[in-house]
Amino acid sequence: MSSISILGLGAMGTALAQTLLKNGHTVTIWNRTGRRAEPLAEAGAKIAESPAEAIAASELTILCVVDYPAARAVLTQAEGVLAGRDLLNLTNGTPGDAREFGAWLAAKGATYLDGGIMAIPPMIGEAGALILYSGSPTLFERHRKTLDALAESRHLGDEVSLASLYDLALLSGMYGLFSGFLHASALVTSAGGKAADFLPLLQPWIQAMSGTLPDLADKVDSDMHGRNVVSNIAMQKVALENIVRASAEQGVAPDFIEPMLRLAGGRIDKGGHDEDISAVIEEIRQRK
Amino acid sequence: MSSISILGLGAMGTALAQTLLKNGHTVTIWNRTGRRAEPLAEAGAKIAESPAEAIAASELTILCVVDYPAARAVLTQAEGVLAGRDLLNLTNGTPGDAREFGAWLAAKGATYLDGGIMAIPPMIGEAGALILYSGSPTLFERHRKTLDALAESRHLGDEVSLASLYDLALLSGMYGLFSGFLHASALVTSAGGKAADFLPLLQPWIQAMSGTLPDLADKVDSDMHGRNVVSNIAMQKVALENIVRASAEQGVAPDFIEPMLRLAGGRIDKGGHDEDISAVIEEIRQRK
Ligand SMILES: NC(=O)c1ccc[n+]([C@@H]2O[C@H](COP(=O)([O-])OP(=O)(O)OC[C@H]3O[C@@H](n4cnc5c(N)ncnc54)[C@H](OP(=O)(O)O)[C@@H]3O)[C@@H](O)[C@H]2O)c1
Ligand SMILES: NC(=O)c1ccc[n+]([C@@H]2O[C@H](COP(=O)([O-])OP(=O)(O)OC[C@H]3O[C@@H](n4cnc5c(N)ncnc54)[C@H](OP(=O)(O)O)[C@@H]3O)[C@@H](O)[C@H]2O)c1
Repeated sequence: MSSISILGLGAMGTALAQTLLKNGHTVTIWNRTGRRAEPLAEAGAKIAESPAEAIAASELTILCVVDYPAARAVLTQAEGVLAGRDLLNLTNGTPGDAREFGAWLAAKGATYLDGGIMAIPPMIGEAGALILYSGSPTLFERHRKTLDALAESRHLGDEVSLASLYDLALLSGMYGLFSGFLHASALVTSAGGKAADFLPLLQPWIQAMSGTLPDLADKVDSDMHGRNVVSNIAMQKVALENIVRASAEQGVAPDFIEPMLRLAGGRIDKGGHDEDISAVIEEIRQRK
Repeated sequence: MSSISILGLGAMGTALAQTLLKNGHTVTIWNRTGRRAEPLAEAGAKIAESPAEAIAASELTILCVVDYPAARAVLTQAEGVLAGRDLLNLTNGTPGDAREFGAWLAAKGATYLDGGIMAIPPMIGEAGALILYSGSPTLFERHRKTLDALAESRHLGDEVSLASLYDLALLSGMYGLFSGFLHASALVTSAGGKAADFLPLLQPWIQAMSGTLPDLADKVDSDMHGRNVVSNIAMQKVALENIVRASAEQGVAPDFIEPMLRLAGGRIDKGGHDEDISAVIEEIRQRK
């Protein structure tokens, strides 16, 4: 068993600390707002009075706060104790944030691993949770057993920005799913239906349409958007226009649908009517 | 076996005709551009010279063209033969389109069933395909066996607009999925990755996040967006901002992500920071 400190006890930091306690580790905790530490202290965690005290207490420190400015604010209070320490940052940020933070910590003499949590708090320690890592392979291997108890661990490479890039790419996929779900639910409930009753139709449909993604991915990777097309963009643009018109009929704002309609139209204007919907990616790639 | 006419031989009309032929039906076909009928004629379909000839030839006529103006243009050429006919329209349109078309056909003495195909052409006649129907239950029951061979059949009610409302709601879900996939793929490929290599991460993630939809649906149906929140909108807004910043770093336009960020911000401005992302639906519902 090892000693681990958690800085940041929001919904996610709390779930991480609970799971580590359950696994028998020695857990030290700190949070800006002290009262959030109390339930964890009752469960056996030691409360540190400052970030520096927490970092000094353990072999590994995990940082999980709302954003990088907050992460920087927390570690700035502990600058004196960073040298020689193992630091894992699970705060969500951009590839650029991770590179900058990693460089700052390297300059202080700390060993840095960046991570992206692909799970909601109740999934931590359960099947289906995944954490992406990038940065120090030494740190990753040293604490691998501890980390594997939180979620499936995937180390993407030494380049510290990879975890956040893939994290944000997966979140983009999730927000697409949520955008579609919310628009669909607004349409269904506008006519008196229930979102919960609609899900038994939506979930298998989403799964069936996920089955078309490998074909779209091949079109994206090959830039061959016109090969073996069974649903051409011109036809799909009509369907998108129908969604927007139906939304107007039903009193639902078209915000979530409008970008696909506009971008599909842009591609068609460039001659893409017989291409697949994958071709829309060319409209969001700002080629250098 | 019955006799069925198909008006419209695009990708979808062709798949419908092929499947009906495979099932041993007598199939009569018509398409505006005649040469698209030839491969089906070789497979045993009879070519009609006009929509009127096609409609007069069969017990059931299925219309599947690009949009409702095209559907109206086709049937206007056959006004004289519509009385007493069974007409199924599988052209994509809005609830208002379906009501208007249904009323027009009723005035001509035809029996009308509206439908929405939840499948791409290669899925027709295969497991996983679904067709939603609404309108005449008599027509539906009379041709039920024929229709069941095309896809799983779901009759949603006598109100003719229901199939198109649910069809467009499901398509909204699909376009959300595609929007997220395309944005994610643009991020990954901007860093030299392949969309196809990313899918083994994306597909299980989308499935895991689909598992959170029942909770979000309950929040939508109850208007209680602040209950049992494990991922508050304020934290999610930071993640959305990170996606937009990362997109700028990587040269990807933020069109697909920007609506969720903007709408989440609008809800937070009204005091919703501790609510779940389900609360964003209130921003697209134009309450009357
Ligand atoms: N919840 C999820 O579903 C989920 C899933 C995957 C990843 N994540 C990531 O995990 C991280 C934490 O999310 P969460 O859900 O735990 O958020 P949360 O419940 O909103 O908690 C935010 C945490 O950040 C701290 N904080 C904010 N500003 C601070 C500052 N200036 N200095 C010090 N601490 C500060 C808060 O401390 P106070 O208590 O003092 O306010 C609190 O501990 C985020 O990067 C998020 O993207 C969350
Ligand atoms: N393909 C799919 O993935 C899919 C999935 C579900 C539902 N659908 C729906 O099925 C319907 C047909 O789609 P599709 O994929 O077959 O489209 P498509 O391959 O683009 O074919 C369009 C069809 O519409 C006909 N048409 C267009 N304008 C016309 C007009 N003014 N008068 C007469 N005919 C006209 C075309 O005739 P010409 O050959 O003469 O141009 C052609 O037969 C659409 O409503 C679509 O939303 C398609």
